[in-house]
Amino acid sequence: MRVLAKEIAALAASASAPAAEVELKGWVHRVRELGGVSFVMLRDRSGIVQVVVEGKADLTLESVVSVTGLPAPNPKAPGGAELRASSLATISAAAGDLPYPVNADPDKIGLDVILDNRPLSLRNPKIRAIFAVQSTIIAAFSEHLRGLDFTEMKTSKLISGGTEGGTGLFEVEYFDTKVYLAQSPQFYKQTMVASGMERVFEVAPAYRAEKHDTPRHLNEYVSMDVEMAFIDSERDLIELEKGLLAHIFARVAEKNAAELALWGASVPSAEAVAASPTIGHEEALAIAAEEAARSPDGAAGAGVAGKKGPARAFEINPEVERLLCAWSAREKGSELVFVNEFPRRHRPFYTYPLDATRTMSFDALFRGLEITTGGRRHHEYSALLEVLPKFGLKAEDLGDYLSVFKYGCPPHGGFAIGCERLTQKILGLPNVKEASLFPRDRKRVRP
Amino acid sequence: MRVLAKEIAALAASASAPAAEVELKGWVHRVRELGGVSFVMLRDRSGIVQVVVEGKADLTLESVVSVTGLPAPNPKAPGGAELRASSLATISAAAGDLPYPVNADPDKIGLDVILDNRPLSLRNPKIRAIFAVQSTIIAAFSEHLRGLDFTEMKTSKLISGGTEGGTGLFEVEYFDTKVYLAQSPQFYKQTMVASGMERVFEVAPAYRAEKHDTPRHLNEYVSMDVEMAFIDSERDLIELEKGLLAHIFARVAEKNAAELALWGASVPSAEAVAASPTIGHEEALAIAAEEAARSPDGAAGAGVAGKKGPARAFEINPEVERLLCAWSAREKGSELVFVNEFPRRHRPFYTYPLDATRTMSFDALFRGLEITTGGRRHHEYSALLEVLPKFGLKAEDLGDYLSVFKYGCPPHGGFAIGCERLTQKILGLPNVKEASLFPRDRKRVRP
Repeated sequence: MRVLAKEIAALAASASAPAAEVELKGWVHRVRELGGVSFVMLRDRSGIVQVVVEGKADLTLESVVSVTGLPAPNPKAPGGAELRASSLATISAAAGDLPYPVNADPDKIGLDVILDNRPLSLRNPKIRAIFAVQSTIIAAFSEHLRGLDFTEMKTSKLISGGTEGGTGLFEVEYFDTKVYLAQSPQFYKQTMVASGMERVFEVAPAYRAEKHDTPRHLNEYVSMDVEMAFIDSERDLIELEKGLLAHIFARVAEKNAAELALWGASVPSAEAVAASPTIGHEEALAIAAEEAARSPDGAAGAGVAGKKGPARAFEINPEVERLLCAWSAREKGSELVFVNEFPRRHRPFYTYPLDATRTMSFDALFRGLEITTGGRRHHEYSALLEVLPKFGLKAEDLGDYLSVFKYGCPPHGGFAIGCERLTQKILGLPNVKEASLFPRDRKRVRP
Repeated sequence: MRVLAKEIAALAASASAPAAEVELKGWVHRVRELGGVSFVMLRDRSGIVQVVVEGKADLTLESVVSVTGLPAPNPKAPGGAELRASSLATISAAAGDLPYPVNADPDKIGLDVILDNRPLSLRNPKIRAIFAVQSTIIAAFSEHLRGLDFTEMKTSKLISGGTEGGTGLFEVEYFDTKVYLAQSPQFYKQTMVASGMERVFEVAPAYRAEKHDTPRHLNEYVSMDVEMAFIDSERDLIELEKGLLAHIFARVAEKNAAELALWGASVPSAEAVAASPTIGHEEALAIAAEEAARSPDGAAGAGVAGKKGPARAFEINPEVERLLCAWSAREKGSELVFVNEFPRRHRPFYTYPLDATRTMSFDALFRGLEITTGGRRHHEYSALLEVLPKFGLKAEDLGDYLSVFKYGCPPHGGFAIGCERLTQKILGLPNVKEASLFPRDRKRVRP
């Protein structure tokens, strides 16, 4: 009977006598020979365990093997136990010219090498751990929202026009016409809310044909989208996201303790999430300016060095995001900050106004990075018609979208969490590409 | 305090006195005036409830309103209760020229009209019910697999070549190069299995640039993919899929009783799923030929009318799928049939052989439609290199893919369930497009 690597310690410690032989199946992660005995570190989906083989084990790294033997305690073995092999059979022999050192610490290998060799680098337990955490994030996101009566939806990624005005879209040859890859399910989310479904979410790819190559951008990413009816303002959405993130963090702590340990990472407590501040856009800039003044480097990065003018002389940029999270961690005990009331000129046409200059919109910043943009949306047909020309749009451009509002639409809003960015920040990865299984950037379209 | 439509009956029946006023928010689904009183059918995410308003309710259909009043029993009202309104306020007035009859039975409206008016037709409770069921299917799929230690993955949909040889791909303009929309995550699933993750699943869009316009095809669909290591044959996968489908059916029965009732639909029992037969490809053709002989129409559809030759003179086509399910329902008490051991010439190069002519592959047919294709895959590098030329492929064409096998890969296999097809067949929808929120076909790229 096959058992998993993680079960060997418990089997070795169990009092059943005579101990029974068990079978392990897995990958040869490392081999060390010492005094006529081979120590094979065997890797399976549950972890790594030491297998002791008499004599020289003639094995290439990454070969898949089946080993039968007795579990035994050994304080010197990782996990305090090992399997003493009575027989070992190779299921799939790996070639000897392994082009990527699977068992090496990925921190010592350049990101391009890791990504160029993705089919092999994903075998490294520390790298694979990233995607175990990501799997938990997706499950917890869905679970929390389903508990609040949200319905999961799957919408088309092939659209005839752009949500935000048509820039930054990838073009697709679609039979005799051209369509575009969706930047977000924005219009579809709103359509479903207005259908009477009221509360919807989607986890799906989103596309941005933007040329920047930075540690925070992907051209294809997983967008975790939420939209709900009958809200008063973006503050209802911020409360929803706090509950959602607290649940995700709790589930990651519960399911992925080993993966967090590999990265030396931890997740915020429910108390810390609850303590996260919500600050207005103007106030956020003022706080960032003050925070920048504490450190000359920060001030230079934020673009405020030597400036005497008002805080609005600079904008929320990556350095400001970092400064705001540093401020919140120190002053509020939370690495999560919500910034709301963004100026109208910074937000898409469908954003609901708070007053003449500000909107009911927000960003969530976590550990120095924007992970969410959201807000309340216009739901009144007449207001939308009025606002379109100010954004250079015509009613005809929006086609089917406007009928959603012409025929009864509740006040509503929503947000999206970037799945890779959240994964990145939970584990403390330097680059968001590390949190994408097969990342796409301007130059990278394989593997 | 807002309550939901479905809660009114319980509130009306509760013994608390004096009864408290509650608020409903929702859409005006239908209005009937009778003897100085208006009966407003109010729709929200939970259902529809009758609201009684004194005098003439000046409301357009689909307007969003808030109503305050007392819940009261009324045996004549749907659900046995109603809300007696003390006040009603319009939140969002719908224009009076509603172009689609939201409250009409969709069975009496043509599919093109339904799809052309998707933002409004989705408001119909019977149509919206389809997507409540679909949401449950996706949740149950994930839940069952997570319980078996599977990890959810999200892979790129932008690939540099095709899985099955390059035909039927949509081309994407990607900066200075061209990429394609993925037909399936096949190579990525295998990569992740071989990484040591062993068991993975994905729910994501898949694309087929095929020109057919039939009730069973979509050019963009949601593929529910599964792949697992250390299997012996496709029979392990069939067992896995039986458990998975039984769980999905049980969850739909539990969560979507109202939606099933709207469609007059029911799901197979766990016993029926367990009784589903697995029949070899040759035997399946023989059974279909016999079944066709029972009905001249069936024989004509299956292409066997008047043929005297062996069963293999025809192939598994839509009519044969229908015949096999009819046979299984009658003889085995299950509307689900697994057909395995497909000929090598019918399956992709990566399919594991059973013998010189047959493969370890299978299809699942449910209520007359193929909902799954799967099988064990080649895991040996040398066997893959040998098989490629027979399929007109070169090692160079497969690039990164082959490294998965060169460096240790366990025996493995998997399958995919078409989410829209499963939804369609659970509810008995005539056309798979009805089970896609925003379907894409050769002519349809909006809404």
